[in-house]
Amino acid sequence: MKIIAPLAVALAFGTLSASAFAQFQKPEDAVKYRKGALTVMANHFGRIGAMANGRAPFDAKVAAESAAIVETMSKLPWEGFVPGTDKGDTAALPVIWTEQAKFKESADKLQTATAQLAAAAKTGNLDSVKTAFGATAQTCKACHDAFRK
Amino acid sequence: MKIIAPLAVALAFGTLSASAFAQFQKPEDAVKYRKGALTVMANHFGRIGAMANGRAPFDAKVAAESAAIVETMSKLPWEGFVPGTDKGDTAALPVIWTEQAKFKESADKLQTATAQLAAAAKTGNLDSVKTAFGATAQTCKACHDAFRK
Repeated sequence: MKIIAPLAVALAFGTLSASAFAQFQKPEDAVKYRKGALTVMANHFGRIGAMANGRAPFDAKVAAESAAIVETMSKLPWEGFVPGTDKGDTAALPVIWTEQAKFKESADKLQTATAQLAAAAKTGNLDSVKTAFGATAQTCKACHDAFRK
Repeated sequence: MKIIAPLAVALAFGTLSASAFAQFQKPEDAVKYRKGALTVMANHFGRIGAMANGRAPFDAKVAAESAAIVETMSKLPWEGFVPGTDKGDTAALPVIWTEQAKFKESADKLQTATAQLAAAAKTGNLDSVKTAFGATAQTCKACHDAFRK
């Protein structure tokens, strides 16, 4: 089974070009892709969190590298939420597809927050990182509360 | 069970700072992380491949974006190959840990190739992309042949 046109999602996010539409040959591929991006994002976000919360010593270089990865990853998963992929090995709730505008708004908020986190990490100032980390964590939580099992 | 010090791998790769050592609370987390990074890399590499092989129209912007993601991802998975993680949901062969110098050499070759791919994609020249794609694909294959079930 091929997903020929996850067009609604792609257009809703407004960031995908035609050649990206056929990137997932099977629904499982789309799920695996979005989970991969979210896993890498969560791991690097956790590294920053450990520093922000004092569980690890603050290393400005590591924080900046991880924040850049978080920012890059935050742009990716959305394309993987193609219609019909609320089944199988996923915690995605069907409401993602019935409330696409809200879902897109959540995704946008995350991306705004991660851009600010990356900028904060670049300054090398721990207090700025703490503030931006907290703001970003709130966008994670809000989206998980609404759209994840 | 915590992995306290995947120090040998980290030092072998020479790129990790102390705060990265404790990033994986459980062996499964390390496996999930490296698979996530490899999945995202493979997906975007595949998008470039579709253009390089004429299965998709060449879109220089999309190719450059995907190549940048491939380059970023190519730096990440290695840290996830912590000792003891050749078990469970993984295709990693034990030889990774008995022949670390060879494994590192393969990882380095990939990273050199993906940097060249990203540079080629930035030029917007399809022939350059084709050449760099082929060279990168060879590094993928060589590593998979030697180190993957």
